[in-house]
Amino acid sequence: MSKFLSFIFLVPSFLSFGQSDSTFIRTVYNEALSHGHAYEDLRSLCKDIGARITGSAEAEMAIQWGKRKMESYNFDKVYLQEIQVPHWERGTTEAGWIKYSDGSMSKVNLLALGGSIGTNGLMEAEVIEFSSLEELKNLKSDKTTKGKIVFINQPMDEQQINTFKAYGGCWPMRGLGAIEAAQHGAKAVLIRSLGLPVDEHPHTGGMYYTDTVQKIPAAALSTLDAEKLSTSLKKEKVQFVLEMDCRDYPDKTSYNVIGELKGSENPNNIITFGGHLDSWDTGEGAHDDGAGIVHCMEALRILKTMDYQPKNTLRLVFFMNEENGNRGGKGYAEWAKEQTHEKHIAAVESDRGGFAPRGFSCDGSEEQVLFLQSLEKHFSQYDLHVFEKGYGGVDIGPLKTQFEEIPLFGFVPDSQRYFDFHHAPSDVFENVNKRELELGCAAIASFLYLLDQNL
Amino acid sequence: MSKFLSFIFLVPSFLSFGQSDSTFIRTVYNEALSHGHAYEDLRSLCKDIGARITGSAEAEMAIQWGKRKMESYNFDKVYLQEIQVPHWERGTTEAGWIKYSDGSMSKVNLLALGGSIGTNGLMEAEVIEFSSLEELKNLKSDKTTKGKIVFINQPMDEQQINTFKAYGGCWPMRGLGAIEAAQHGAKAVLIRSLGLPVDEHPHTGGMYYTDTVQKIPAAALSTLDAEKLSTSLKKEKVQFVLEMDCRDYPDKTSYNVIGELKGSENPNNIITFGGHLDSWDTGEGAHDDGAGIVHCMEALRILKTMDYQPKNTLRLVFFMNEENGNRGGKGYAEWAKEQTHEKHIAAVESDRGGFAPRGFSCDGSEEQVLFLQSLEKHFSQYDLHVFEKGYGGVDIGPLKTQFEEIPLFGFVPDSQRYFDFHHAPSDVFENVNKRELELGCAAIASFLYLLDQNL
Repeated sequence: MSKFLSFIFLVPSFLSFGQSDSTFIRTVYNEALSHGHAYEDLRSLCKDIGARITGSAEAEMAIQWGKRKMESYNFDKVYLQEIQVPHWERGTTEAGWIKYSDGSMSKVNLLALGGSIGTNGLMEAEVIEFSSLEELKNLKSDKTTKGKIVFINQPMDEQQINTFKAYGGCWPMRGLGAIEAAQHGAKAVLIRSLGLPVDEHPHTGGMYYTDTVQKIPAAALSTLDAEKLSTSLKKEKVQFVLEMDCRDYPDKTSYNVIGELKGSENPNNIITFGGHLDSWDTGEGAHDDGAGIVHCMEALRILKTMDYQPKNTLRLVFFMNEENGNRGGKGYAEWAKEQTHEKHIAAVESDRGGFAPRGFSCDGSEEQVLFLQSLEKHFSQYDLHVFEKGYGGVDIGPLKTQFEEIPLFGFVPDSQRYFDFHHAPSDVFENVNKRELELGCAAIASFLYLLDQNL
Repeated sequence: MSKFLSFIFLVPSFLSFGQSDSTFIRTVYNEALSHGHAYEDLRSLCKDIGARITGSAEAEMAIQWGKRKMESYNFDKVYLQEIQVPHWERGTTEAGWIKYSDGSMSKVNLLALGGSIGTNGLMEAEVIEFSSLEELKNLKSDKTTKGKIVFINQPMDEQQINTFKAYGGCWPMRGLGAIEAAQHGAKAVLIRSLGLPVDEHPHTGGMYYTDTVQKIPAAALSTLDAEKLSTSLKKEKVQFVLEMDCRDYPDKTSYNVIGELKGSENPNNIITFGGHLDSWDTGEGAHDDGAGIVHCMEALRILKTMDYQPKNTLRLVFFMNEENGNRGGKGYAEWAKEQTHEKHIAAVESDRGGFAPRGFSCDGSEEQVLFLQSLEKHFSQYDLHVFEKGYGGVDIGPLKTQFEEIPLFGFVPDSQRYFDFHHAPSDVFENVNKRELELGCAAIASFLYLLDQNL
């Protein structure tokens, strides 16, 4: 049946008001831009709570904040979903110094990587620099690394137009550097922060140990300090003095926060969408992922405010623990699988910052990517043009394990400035632009509407 | 002849190295992102000189700065083109207060509009608010406005996706408010700043008087103070106290700064490109139009560094006096017309800020727009997608008067943040992002290359 005929004879409820898709989407944008709550909600999350690493008191406060906010917007159902989460704390002491051959010292800006062990007091050793994890891996003899501090100084590739590709290229240094350095007998590993600008902000992030390799402390230097250390090493032998008292604690009980608008036609068909409520323990988690949290909450608020009756259930999830374990994403997917009456038809994630929207990517079949591309026409006047195969998101990723055929969609904002702030003390509310944030909310609300209407 | 055949048989000089368009453009981007001079050049223009309104000592310094910079990059020819420019100065006193009915006063942030006369000491009068210039125009009787201060409080329309459209909608209030208010007997006019955020920064900008209507002082309040004044006026009668000692001075001699790479095949075919060297006298003119200046200079530096031999002459122009007279643009076009041996085949302007590139617009015939659209394919991997009919730029606009058939191209960066900073104290170097700026340089250098190859 042609679109026109379906319009005449079927007349879905929202169309009874004579609204076309384009009118509906225009109304969404007007609400977001003229009556938006996103910016003030983000201010509250960043300033009233701030950094909220999994297991912290602030993470608990953020859960209550999210639940209260969702309730204040009168979503049909608001509830918590219990999960067990890891609990790592940075501790109170964290410092590093370059120690030159004449004994003089120069303090650097660093952050322990998330999950690192501490140094148990001051640790001092000679520094050996590598240009990449690859170079360290290919080292034949451990003579030069044994008992030393390995320093991996791989800059993000600024020639990548999409900065996430540059990030991906450097991720192994952070994620696997401690394992590789320990295998080569090192006492600790320092990495260059995964940030594009050369500045004073260190960028933390997740890292791994294995059971079979000794755990050693791991920290990220600011890019400026990485360059300073590298310059020093070209001139002389250099020691590094490191002190960190971060440590792991036993797992804790925590929660994903869930809010729903119930489907009017197919209440058991679920469209899951959200971002992650936890952040690293530095800055305010404004872009990562406060923006994603308010993007998605605001999208549902807008649809609710417009009195939109979704055909399918729209389920907003604030995932806990994306940064260091993804227990929220995994726990949600397992729980969803147990709800045997539910059919999971799509999932959407926003976790790439609060910048001007460029489009959506699809982790799905060729047909699902074609479907995504069919939606592009609705967004051309809103300056979105990226509708392509690509990544969904860490939190919604486990849904694919449980439901093989579910399409995962990732919201794609402009990527140029994300790695100025990512996991750094500079990821604060002031670095999020109100309009850019609001345009993201409108794009996601419109996208949810189109998914709901067309899936 | 097919592209392939032209490749085989014609082999332009730059292709003799086996470079395809895509390889050439990739090299342009790599140079801009890995070895770029744009960011440091912009820092120098903003910090070593700063605000540089036409006729000021700083504008003269900027001319010398531009000439020296171009010479340092070894362009084939660097010279100054003399013009006569207006000379207006803000003076040393500029302040305004809301005076409530109980006599208490509240100071506001304001800036005289560029070209305004002063108040000749303190001026005090009752304030009458209008929601737009239209409302003032439609006022039948002057009873309420005579001897008063007219306050036009039209907010920019935040629902416009392209913020330049919102700016265009408010421009008459700033440009023509003083004329209209004077015609209704007002003593002065205050306007709400043309800025999108509600914040403390006033935004100045050009305005007009006519010979037949009395000149009255004109100033812009910060959007926050405009809202404060409007709120007060809803409660009570309010006076405003204004003091400004800005004034006009006689015209001065000034210059456009010009640098060229000479055409190897058609040296008399000219592709003009540039931005404007002057700025308003607040902030540092970083986005407006320091970004455009370094975009274009860096584009030519990159082509020169790559040893590119253009077919046509690439002429970089730093125009003087875009903000309050456009004498540079007009003078250049008249001078160009006098160079009867020259054929002006295209012009390109960057004057919309240093944000992430989105594409190019064309002020030209249908055929010229189709030509522009044919270039889009070269930019898809660099995330540019706007290739459409649209505005060229203020500086290159007069070329159209002199050469009817010349296509004018405007560089289109993302518009969302431009009116946070435009003509305001916040338009400083720190609000320009390095990568975004560099990507703009690469886009313009690539575009010039494609124009040169294909026109």
